[in-house]
Amino acid sequence: MGIFSADIETMDDLFLHQLRDIYYAEKQIVKALPDMIAKATSEPLRQAFESHLDETHGQIARLEQVFDLLGQEASGTDCPAIDGIIEEANEISSDVADDNVLNAALAAAAQAVEHYEISRYGTLVAWGQELDREDCARLLRETLEEEKAADRKLTDLAEERLNQAA
Amino acid sequence: MGIFSADIETMDDLFLHQLRDIYYAEKQIVKALPDMIAKATSEPLRQAFESHLDETHGQIARLEQVFDLLGQEASGTDCPAIDGIIEEANEISSDVADDNVLNAALAAAAQAVEHYEISRYGTLVAWGQELDREDCARLLRETLEEEKAADRKLTDLAEERLNQAA
Repeated sequence: MGIFSADIETMDDLFLHQLRDIYYAEKQIVKALPDMIAKATSEPLRQAFESHLDETHGQIARLEQVFDLLGQEASGTDCPAIDGIIEEANEISSDVADDNVLNAALAAAAQAVEHYEISRYGTLVAWGQELDREDCARLLRETLEEEKAADRKLTDLAEERLNQAA
Repeated sequence: MGIFSADIETMDDLFLHQLRDIYYAEKQIVKALPDMIAKATSEPLRQAFESHLDETHGQIARLEQVFDLLGQEASGTDCPAIDGIIEEANEISSDVADDNVLNAALAAAAQAVEHYEISRYGTLVAWGQELDREDCARLLRETLEEEKAADRKLTDLAEERLNQAA
C-alpha cells in the first residue's frame, strides 16, 4: 500500500483498498501459475492448476465488475503477502529434483495461495454486506466459493497420494 | 529457505523444511501480536488476540516436541510468506486512524495469518500421515484445530459487527 495508505479513513476506503490488494494478487497468480503447470508432473495436479488458471481469469473479470459497480477504476496496490507466498513457492519448486516430492511441494504452495485468497474474499464479502453492497458481495461470494472448491480439490489430491502410499 | 533448499530430496526433507518454515512463522507471529493487541480498541478483538498469543506459545512448544520426535534440532528457516503477511498487517494498521476501521483491518490481517497457518498445518498433518509419523501428525492436528477455531472466532466477531451495523 504505502503511498495510498493515508487515504484509508472509512470502511469504504478499507473495502476499496482490500479490493486493490486482491486484484494485484490475482494478477500475480496468473503470472505464477504457468510455471507451476510446467513443473507439475502429476497429471491430476497439472489439470487442477490449469483449471484454476482459467478460473482466475474469471475472478479478475469479476473484480473488475465490482470496481465498476463502485464507480472506481480497476487498479492494484502492492500486496507483500502474495509476493511472499509466490516467492516461497518459486524457491521451493526450483530446488526439488524428485517428481513426487516436487508435486507435493507445488500442491502445498498452491494451497497457501488458495488460503490467502479465501481469507481475503471472506473479509471482502463481510465488508460488502456491512456496507450494504449486496451487489458487490454476491460477486465476491462466487469467487470465495470457487477458491474453497479449489482448495478442497488439492486436499483430495493429497489424500489420494496418502492412499497410494498406504 | 535459500541455502538449505538443495537438501530437499525426499518427503522427509520436505516435511522437515515445512516444519522449519512454520516454526519461523510462529516466532514472527509471537513478535507481531503484542503490537496488534496494543492497537486493537475493540475489547473482544483484543481478548481474541491475547488468547491467540497464549495459544501460539503452546504451538511453538508442540513444534519443538515434533522436532524432538524426529531427532532434529528445532530451528527456523526464512519464510517470505509470513514476512509479507505481517508486513501488510503492520502497514495497514499504521495508517488507519478511525477505531472501527482499524479494528476491522486488524481482524482481517489476523485472519490472513490464521489462513496461512491452516494451510501449512493442513499440509504437515497430511505429510506426517504419508510418512507414517502419526505421533507427529497428532500434535500438528491439535494445532490445526486451534488455528481453525481462532479463525472462526474472528469470523464470529466480524458477523457481530455486521449485526450491529444492520
